[in-house]
Amino acid sequence: MDTTLINPFLNSVLNVLSTMAKLKATPGKMSLKKGQVALGNVTGLIGMVGNKVKGTFAITFSDEVVLEIAKRMLGEELTKIDDTVIDLVGELTNMVTGGAKRILSEDDHKFNMALPSVISGENHVIIHNSKVPIIMVPFSTESGDFFIEICFEE
Amino acid sequence: MDTTLINPFLNSVLNVLSTMAKLKATPGKMSLKKGQVALGNVTGLIGMVGNKVKGTFAITFSDEVVLEIAKRMLGEELTKIDDTVIDLVGELTNMVTGGAKRILSEDDHKFNMALPSVISGENHVIIHNSKVPIIMVPFSTESGDFFIEICFEE
Repeated sequence: MDTTLINPFLNSVLNVLSTMAKLKATPGKMSLKKGQVALGNVTGLIGMVGNKVKGTFAITFSDEVVLEIAKRMLGEELTKIDDTVIDLVGELTNMVTGGAKRILSEDDHKFNMALPSVISGENHVIIHNSKVPIIMVPFSTESGDFFIEICFEE
Repeated sequence: MDTTLINPFLNSVLNVLSTMAKLKATPGKMSLKKGQVALGNVTGLIGMVGNKVKGTFAITFSDEVVLEIAKRMLGEELTKIDDTVIDLVGELTNMVTGGAKRILSEDDHKFNMALPSVISGENHVIIHNSKVPIIMVPFSTESGDFFIEICFEE
């Protein structure tokens, strides 16, 4: 997999969180993941179909981070993963992939996005069913950590 | 949402299970679902981007049904949702959407598929984050029930 596809997502995550939630996130070390990945409690997932590659983007939040983001974006103090938070995670997923799509279009990658889904449930596991490796990037914020996973196939 | 999009998926599910697993499934009543849907223990999910609509297809199995399908397709007695079962659910998701894609192409719908993901975990909840309703169809088999969910946006 072409790892130059990753940076646009990484930059888009930072950009969306800083502009929409005034939250500074710091990316950690990119790693390759195979097999099962145990994630946080709520994940936004979207399929992407491009002119050169197709794949999946996922963003997984701990309760602490997503509730902080919700508070900053909506001005509401939320205490649990409810429909409002679920909608927000879907929107964030759309915004991040939309931003990445714009950056990638400068590099001659044209993408169409499917609809985002949001998965919640403690200890849920998402396996990107593909023969290619999954690239994972952790992010830290003052309110806790979150992760993105990207998986593309040519 | 155009419910004529649903039948190709329904027929493809029946076809895949009868040819690949020699398992007869009987579809139940189609219903509209909004909001959260609590599902079985393992779900295959795939994004679809078409020339007219885009959306998501999901198929969710109870342990009993998916282990029976695995036994029939692989000739192995499996007792839990392991990597083999996960791969099988990803493959079934690909086969069902591939079959539906072929049927839909006769109706001038051209689809590209993203990569399937498989989600497992007790009581996981998948929310198709879209403003359009989710159509759900239950299926019964001699080994238990499973469900498909389809969500398309124009």
